[in-house]
Amino acid sequence: MQKFDWKDENNYSLLADFYEFTMANGYLDSGIAENIAYFDLYFREIPDGAGFAISSGLEQAIEYIKRLSFTKEDIEYFKSKEMFSQKFLDYLKNFKFECDLWAMPEGSIIFPNEPILTVRGPVIQAQMMETMLLVTMNFQSMIATKANRIVRAADGRKVLEFGSRRAHGYNSAILGARAAYIGGCVGSANTLTDRLYGVPALGTMAHSWIQMFDSEIDAFRAYAKAYPHNCNLLIDTYDVLNEGLPNAIKIFNEEVLPKGFRPTGVRIDSGDLSYLSKKVRQGLDEAGFEDCPIVLSGGLDEYTIGSLLKQGAKVDSFGVGERLITSKSDPIFGCVYKLVATEDENGKILPKIKISENIIKITTPGFKQVYRFFDKETDAPIADVLMLRDEKFEVKDNYEIFHPLHTWKRKTLKNYYYKKMLVPIFEKGELVYDMPSLEEIREYALSNVEKLWPESKRFENPHVYFVDYSQKLWDLKNKLLNEHDF
Amino acid sequence: MQKFDWKDENNYSLLADFYEFTMANGYLDSGIAENIAYFDLYFREIPDGAGFAISSGLEQAIEYIKRLSFTKEDIEYFKSKEMFSQKFLDYLKNFKFECDLWAMPEGSIIFPNEPILTVRGPVIQAQMMETMLLVTMNFQSMIATKANRIVRAADGRKVLEFGSRRAHGYNSAILGARAAYIGGCVGSANTLTDRLYGVPALGTMAHSWIQMFDSEIDAFRAYAKAYPHNCNLLIDTYDVLNEGLPNAIKIFNEEVLPKGFRPTGVRIDSGDLSYLSKKVRQGLDEAGFEDCPIVLSGGLDEYTIGSLLKQGAKVDSFGVGERLITSKSDPIFGCVYKLVATEDENGKILPKIKISENIIKITTPGFKQVYRFFDKETDAPIADVLMLRDEKFEVKDNYEIFHPLHTWKRKTLKNYYYKKMLVPIFEKGELVYDMPSLEEIREYALSNVEKLWPESKRFENPHVYFVDYSQKLWDLKNKLLNEHDF
Repeated sequence: MQKFDWKDENNYSLLADFYEFTMANGYLDSGIAENIAYFDLYFREIPDGAGFAISSGLEQAIEYIKRLSFTKEDIEYFKSKEMFSQKFLDYLKNFKFECDLWAMPEGSIIFPNEPILTVRGPVIQAQMMETMLLVTMNFQSMIATKANRIVRAADGRKVLEFGSRRAHGYNSAILGARAAYIGGCVGSANTLTDRLYGVPALGTMAHSWIQMFDSEIDAFRAYAKAYPHNCNLLIDTYDVLNEGLPNAIKIFNEEVLPKGFRPTGVRIDSGDLSYLSKKVRQGLDEAGFEDCPIVLSGGLDEYTIGSLLKQGAKVDSFGVGERLITSKSDPIFGCVYKLVATEDENGKILPKIKISENIIKITTPGFKQVYRFFDKETDAPIADVLMLRDEKFEVKDNYEIFHPLHTWKRKTLKNYYYKKMLVPIFEKGELVYDMPSLEEIREYALSNVEKLWPESKRFENPHVYFVDYSQKLWDLKNKLLNEHDF
Repeated sequence: MQKFDWKDENNYSLLADFYEFTMANGYLDSGIAENIAYFDLYFREIPDGAGFAISSGLEQAIEYIKRLSFTKEDIEYFKSKEMFSQKFLDYLKNFKFECDLWAMPEGSIIFPNEPILTVRGPVIQAQMMETMLLVTMNFQSMIATKANRIVRAADGRKVLEFGSRRAHGYNSAILGARAAYIGGCVGSANTLTDRLYGVPALGTMAHSWIQMFDSEIDAFRAYAKAYPHNCNLLIDTYDVLNEGLPNAIKIFNEEVLPKGFRPTGVRIDSGDLSYLSKKVRQGLDEAGFEDCPIVLSGGLDEYTIGSLLKQGAKVDSFGVGERLITSKSDPIFGCVYKLVATEDENGKILPKIKISENIIKITTPGFKQVYRFFDKETDAPIADVLMLRDEKFEVKDNYEIFHPLHTWKRKTLKNYYYKKMLVPIFEKGELVYDMPSLEEIREYALSNVEKLWPESKRFENPHVYFVDYSQKLWDLKNKLLNEHDF
């Protein structure tokens, strides 16, 4: 059988809602397929009621677009449906990506109701990317965000991602581990993510290792012999305090480890982790292994880790599984992809709005940039302001911003600088962005979190970050709303 | 760029927890790599407190095993870690799958604490499949089970799977749509799942279609012209009752549709679905479109669908998105993979047990078969009994079974027949199972659900199905438990 590294080979062009293609075909049929459209990708609520989220997935979105094309089999498939025109099939056959795309760099702090990605291009093309851009950004942003919460709860202790077996499918395990690393985990149990993306793979033994030997101590000894430089023992197969710990200490004292090498840890995966960790710490210390770290795993997330630390658990690192990789407490990251403008034949931008009874579902029209304002002294972000692209923003000493709904909520910015958050990724179909390395993305994400106000980082009732409109954008949106007859 | 159909090409051999490989290397180092081990794959709790689950994923598990092998790059990766022996690298290079594997057919009804898959083989091999077998069976079983709950809540109305954009990654979207189909959905919005697996792809238009035209009615007319045979209109872009519905009726009356063709539906995706559906039904009926179906979507699962129907919503089918594809109300299906026996050099089976303070985490030792007993008259399953493989079960007129923990809970089976649920899939590494088609799996699953007692199917406090032990298995487990000193 032929082998290959599938990381860069999968073509997900058909991973799209069927309606993307019925619409694409319909746009051709109606003669508007080449009309220029603008779509914003954004989300409305942060999972877990958090104060911020971390964007992740841009690299995979780019990889998808680079491969966006249709095979002979794809085209035969559409033909077999007997509802697509020959013109459409020919279009797919000769498909050439022509859109512009802007996005916030991977690892950016992101907030609700601001574009984190904008696509401009022939509507037939911009439309058909909807599903893949969403599934890509939604899942990885969810995991990067969740992982960072868990890492912050661990308060300086290491967090290892252990959830592959409970992930929602294979990419979820692989790219989830990648996103967890961006969010601050030090590594993952997933071997493939190490091999493909360089996320450090971590792991020692399961209970089955212990059971394969005649006794626990035989199993420990065999492990210590095989891995003298990484002797981390799982001590809860039978009885942590009466068997696992004494057996581990015996092995550590047996000089199985080469001279000068110290044990790298013991792991407890079940039972009362708080109680057991304290007793194990005490036992290790008394035996002269004050430097032997304790790893805890089983049922952990930001809440249980917070509780363990409050109880005084003695722990050096956490293995976090199903509750991280599924974002169990809130498993949906809800990015949407909405039409915000079109262009007329002269290239004039025509802003579009989608009305809804539900205020949060009303879209923000126009081709926009996100300006992020930072405090010059602390580098902390203060507020984001959405502006139309044709606005020229000039730094003023006192810049007054206001809330787009509660317009009486005003704030004056002083001593600030700003960044335009959306950067060019594709121009007329050509990739113009140098993708940073995974380590650079991770550092960017973690340094961004570092600079946030503590009020944004707390888990309960965090500060709601300002995402405001420029006066011109506000005027535009209200004009369109008022034009519509309710 | 070369193109291919990646469905059958991905090699997930390294999608394994790193400890599977450190253990594999350690087994070689300790001289026990070829010792025969038995692993059971089973789960402990049914998501959503349900009365049963549906197994899914066996086809993908088989595909994974068929490709289980290691590329030159994989082996270089392990070498670079500087902790694996040359012997291990050679083993990977010459890897040949040699295990036996039994499983319940895909679409089986499954219950907690019984093996739904058993692997027998050299421990080095049986061990390294753990992660992939788990992630495969966990995710798809979760979705098939959840989809079936939603389908039952819909009470005969069609359920369409619409969740790709909120899925946890690409396989989650693709294989989730496949599993949802097995669970009873009539199709999916995911085009790729149709192309690869034949799950009918469904979909018409998004709000952006409406917005691309000068007016809603222009958009409707263009759609009706492009798809006269499938004229299903999305009526909530601006105002369902004052614009969407009247515009749709106007189009239906305009003879855009060819003679004799009727509209195939209207869809409402936001607002108060109960109220709007009733008003829309009334409006359609009054206009002579009693046969025009109403599709509802947005925030649906078994609970909201149940509530809508209780409120008398007028609806013919449901589009269900994020709450199905993520199993939002309980996003973890917790299969585990546990060593239950080894063999000595003479092939004698040595049962193994894993003790735990938590009773539910104590494993059931031995090489077992699951006997399912059915009522001869109704074909309803009555109870499952786990037996050791060397037991010879003979049908008796009155067969008394008992609860493995509360042994005073006894039940006498009469007028029954039984099936052995675990069937051979691989024998000595060779695939011996004819994989049924997706349609066959779906029919098998749905007919299995049909035969269940209603008490197993209700959502609140369902009947807890009996999963008992034979006397011999019970004696064995208690002997091993008593041998261990607590």
